Amino acid sequence: MTLRIAILGAGRIGQVHARAVASEPRARLAAIAEPAPEAARAIAERYGCAIRSIDEIAAADDIDAVIICTPTDTHADLIERFARAGKAVFCEKPVDLDVARARRCIATVDEVGGTLMLGFQRRFDPDFMALKQTIDAGTIGKVEMITLTSRDPGPPPHDYIRRSGGIFRDMTIHDFDVARWLLGEEVTRVQASASVLTDPEIAALGDYDSANVILTTASGTQCTITNTRRATYGYDQRIEVHGSLGAVSARNQHRAEIEVATAGGYLRPPLLDFFMTRYTAAYAGEIAAFVAAVSEGRRPPTTGADGLRALELAEAALEAARTGNAVTPG
Amino acid sequence: MTLRIAILGAGRIGQVHARAVASEPRARLAAIAEPAPEAARAIAERYGCAIRSIDEIAAADDIDAVIICTPTDTHADLIERFARAGKAVFCEKPVDLDVARARRCIATVDEVGGTLMLGFQRRFDPDFMALKQTIDAGTIGKVEMITLTSRDPGPPPHDYIRRSGGIFRDMTIHDFDVARWLLGEEVTRVQASASVLTDPEIAALGDYDSANVILTTASGTQCTITNTRRATYGYDQRIEVHGSLGAVSARNQHRAEIEVATAGGYLRPPLLDFFMTRYTAAYAGEIAAFVAAVSEGRRPPTTGADGLRALELAEAALEAARTGNAVTPG
Amino acid sequence: MTLRIAILGAGRIGQVHARAVASEPRARLAAIAEPAPEAARAIAERYGCAIRSIDEIAAADDIDAVIICTPTDTHADLIERFARAGKAVFCEKPVDLDVARARRCIATVDEVGGTLMLGFQRRFDPDFMALKQTIDAGTIGKVEMITLTSRDPGPPPHDYIRRSGGIFRDMTIHDFDVARWLLGEEVTRVQASASVLTDPEIAALGDYDSANVILTTASGTQCTITNTRRATYGYDQRIEVHGSLGAVSARNQHRAEIEVATAGGYLRPPLLDFFMTRYTAAYAGEIAAFVAAVSEGRRPPTTGADGLRALELAEAALEAARTGNAVTPG
Amino acid sequence: MTLRIAILGAGRIGQVHARAVASEPRARLAAIAEPAPEAARAIAERYGCAIRSIDEIAAADDIDAVIICTPTDTHADLIERFARAGKAVFCEKPVDLDVARARRCIATVDEVGGTLMLGFQRRFDPDFMALKQTIDAGTIGKVEMITLTSRDPGPPPHDYIRRSGGIFRDMTIHDFDVARWLLGEEVTRVQASASVLTDPEIAALGDYDSANVILTTASGTQCTITNTRRATYGYDQRIEVHGSLGAVSARNQHRAEIEVATAGGYLRPPLLDFFMTRYTAAYAGEIAAFVAAVSEGRRPPTTGADGLRALELAEAALEAARTGNAVTPG
Repeated sequence: MTLRIAILGAGRIGQVHARAVASEPRARLAAIAEPAPEAARAIAERYGCAIRSIDEIAAADDIDAVIICTPTDTHADLIERFARAGKAVFCEKPVDLDVARARRCIATVDEVGGTLMLGFQRRFDPDFMALKQTIDAGTIGKVEMITLTSRDPGPPPHDYIRRSGGIFRDMTIHDFDVARWLLGEEVTRVQASASVLTDPEIAALGDYDSANVILTTASGTQCTITNTRRATYGYDQRIEVHGSLGAVSARNQHRAEIEVATAGGYLRPPLLDFFMTRYTAAYAGEIAAFVAAVSEGRRPPTTGADGLRALELAEAALEAARTGNAVTPG
Repeated sequence: MTLRIAILGAGRIGQVHARAVASEPRARLAAIAEPAPEAARAIAERYGCAIRSIDEIAAADDIDAVIICTPTDTHADLIERFARAGKAVFCEKPVDLDVARARRCIATVDEVGGTLMLGFQRRFDPDFMALKQTIDAGTIGKVEMITLTSRDPGPPPHDYIRRSGGIFRDMTIHDFDVARWLLGEEVTRVQASASVLTDPEIAALGDYDSANVILTTASGTQCTITNTRRATYGYDQRIEVHGSLGAVSARNQHRAEIEVATAGGYLRPPLLDFFMTRYTAAYAGEIAAFVAAVSEGRRPPTTGADGLRALELAEAALEAARTGNAVTPG
Repeated sequence: MTLRIAILGAGRIGQVHARAVASEPRARLAAIAEPAPEAARAIAERYGCAIRSIDEIAAADDIDAVIICTPTDTHADLIERFARAGKAVFCEKPVDLDVARARRCIATVDEVGGTLMLGFQRRFDPDFMALKQTIDAGTIGKVEMITLTSRDPGPPPHDYIRRSGGIFRDMTIHDFDVARWLLGEEVTRVQASASVLTDPEIAALGDYDSANVILTTASGTQCTITNTRRATYGYDQRIEVHGSLGAVSARNQHRAEIEVATAGGYLRPPLLDFFMTRYTAAYAGEIAAFVAAVSEGRRPPTTGADGLRALELAEAALEAARTGNAVTPG
Repeated sequence: MTLRIAILGAGRIGQVHARAVASEPRARLAAIAEPAPEAARAIAERYGCAIRSIDEIAAADDIDAVIICTPTDTHADLIERFARAGKAVFCEKPVDLDVARARRCIATVDEVGGTLMLGFQRRFDPDFMALKQTIDAGTIGKVEMITLTSRDPGPPPHDYIRRSGGIFRDMTIHDFDVARWLLGEEVTRVQASASVLTDPEIAALGDYDSANVILTTASGTQCTITNTRRATYGYDQRIEVHGSLGAVSARNQHRAEIEVATAGGYLRPPLLDFFMTRYTAAYAGEIAAFVAAVSEGRRPPTTGADGLRALELAEAALEAARTGNAVTPG
């Protein structure tokens, strides 16, 4: 049976997900909801799907699942609404920037027995998946120390920062999720240091642009996260996991895998510098995983609870950065 | 105006090209011709195209171009037929294993003013394109020495070898085309050494499995090609170009870009070991280039003449390997 | 004028320094002091130097400088004694495990106008020096975030741990010095997390074997240090410095720079697994720097104050790890 | 018993060997013969050895071995003379540029039962030795295809070229020796292509600056050698060996093992650009091997016959390059 999917929002990420749905043999893009008529029409024509309002989709009998690609402040309401309407829901992270609101939303989904997958796409990056499989295969033994390096090519506009919830909730949140995924154990202590190094205006907005976080679990396993908003050399996304028997790391992706040798040295191109290009396969992978889970009646690999827990770590990191003291999350 | 394309042959490569056509905004997969009903139906359903016979497609008014994915021994006839029918033609290499037949076919296409693109996909690999751009930008100066390393993961079945035309016409042909593309000058001398090292049966079939070729141009620029049919570590596809000001190289693609460090050392996964996986982007790229060229009324980037010249180099290499002497191609 | 040097202690590091002195054109190994007669004789014969007692060397007119390679608990006394005797002193780190004692020793050296170089050999590693030069040349702009990865191949014997002063004073101390060298600014805040993951006995000894430290400066520049006592893959010694215009990193040294490709993947040998092999050039470099500084009447590049400051950071890290709270060092 | 060694010639390579002898526990630099008084004195003072004439050394009872570092055209005479004088002889390659003269010299050494080691230092490079050990351990199975890349940073002066015997005898000779070492089987067929690409004056001198050679053995194993006199990026020295079970390669040595990432990309320093710096360890290693072989009464690892065979391959390559035809060496 083919899964009939509606996408809410035809922006950048909505378009990416539309393409992913179209290439899924077990799914069909049935409808697009989008206030901008032109954007809606572009999707509808390209994939042969209907244009409908959110209300229509919520009421429709012929829609099995929705992918929410609307602004963050609409997420929690839409998740609750579509979970109640009996649709399987895929929503881009975060559920909500406010932990309490997110918690209520997750609780609602649970109460109505809904299915919610949160879009932490990094778990579906092919290299990161290969890294995780190496850990799961026992090749490096027990995980002891994780190092996540995550640097954006450049800071977002001030207006974005203002509404972002701050670096920990907006940027580090992905690393918190990756950390939880790889640690295999919940974090019990968060320490952090954060600064403003790239643009004083960011300080004026009450945010940071550079941060280091140490996560520690009950068993003493540790994970450090290094974040900056500005890496001139591209979108720096690396994972290193050190264990009792060895270590495994995933390397960065360059714009091309060539090297030019001249009198000046050996030069490789900079890194891919856009998250959607860097994580193309990961975005397709998360939709494939959503379709597979819903089709087979399985629990999605990343749930609302994962989104909540990552948010709690973000809150803890913020407090830790402000006070200098270790904070117990959650 | 959308280019209406028919694909002849729904085998492995036909399926790859169908997907590529489907993702081209300026093209539409209009028809599939395939004797096996199930395979035809699979393509038709997935991409919403018609199932037609080759005769119907040749006669159709609503088909602008064909992509020939049928067995090698049908290529020359089909190219001539569809060129005469006024369709733009994309054909997988080679035109024909016999130089004389290939020459006649190309001549026919020229006589009728047809458009023929030969599928030398490597020219459309993103890394190789970046390498070529580096050369064209003058970064490494005048090209002096090229080293092409091209190793298959394992020898094909004996039956394939029997019909393949031999290693130079079947395998090295791609390297000959890459060499011509990068040299920017015609080859005037071919030297070669070839052996059977992996399987004595290959010798019994009159073929080789291991070969080195030196191509030299009038200006003294040289290119070496190293081929083997068996590389346990995967599909080894590298290019190195040395010039007066520097050098540029393209690296191999591994199954995942991770590295595992243990007491035994630092281990990266083997290379991708299937040409269609290794050249996924290249196959999509060549179809995109075909669609672009035909849509814009431009000459395709790889023509029948390129296919012919590569075949002449293969013939010369075979003679050079047999005699040990330098051979002038063509 | 040739610098006449005496080495105190003919153990492992004493032998390394003897070789370094012998290859310095501006220096001569004049004497060795060593209680074990055989070890003393080996040095004396190989380099043609005299065997003398520490007392004799302190009283000698024909000795310009001493290199102290005796056990840690003798360092402070010997430094003071030879500084008072008017000899230039090179001493392996640390001055003393106790900050107060180290402080008194440094003060004494200053009072008598002595010359003291502390052996932080990593500053003299050729790759780390090239990295530092890149920073100093302004290539990466203002330093913002430093990542030091420093992993021992295996934990030392329990008896060593017992006398070591703990992981921060014994192992991280080198990273503290490297951090100070690269930050170009004093550290004002230390955060740390430490665990015992490799051997419960280490906990029983009151020590840790795995630690992450965040150092922050007044300007908000940050440095993370990742330490473990056990890396099965060798002696992992990496530096990454991220700045406003770019980043620079130094790679690890493998046992051989070869790569073996098989069906199992691409394998490079493990890392060098002994600090003296890994830092061979660095040990020679620090002696060369000592000889150069003393010969030219310049202040040595690493002084007692550097040793003291690194020790203060170690104390701060220990307190930070115990409490979870940020600590102001010094 | 300590081996008493005399060095003939205090030029660049003589100085390198003097240092190597000095660091050998089983050897002692006893004498230097050098017509330039200052150069002789420098060696004598630094290593505490005597200055003697060649005649004196040949007649001396207290000299066990000589290291010949004089101009090429004196090699054959000196080898014969010192072999007759009963000294073990180490001589830098080549024995002579003329095959017939070299053959007579080797024959003389054999007649008098002399010991001669030819200085093919690359066999003693630590990475190349690790590569060879990998082959010998059977890890890559039977050797099938070897690729030697050997590029000089820049052409030597015209005057040097004039006396060099040409690129094959002067530069490729090292690769011929490495090829023989790794092939484990004699070469039965030589093919070559050579051009002048960097400097027309080199053509006027009757030489080439760019060459590719294919060596083939009786069993069909092949080796390609790629040479150029000018690589702007440094001294490019790589080996790749492909076998039935895998492959092994040795990487280049950069001026520092750092990488700088900026908006322009990821830059590593150029390669070491001087053969003595690149092969520092190899030069020390060949002297160590000579001392070990003579001390233990073993046959040296590289003999006059090796030098002769490499020269025969050079002659064959020259003829092959001139005619375009395969040549049987020897």
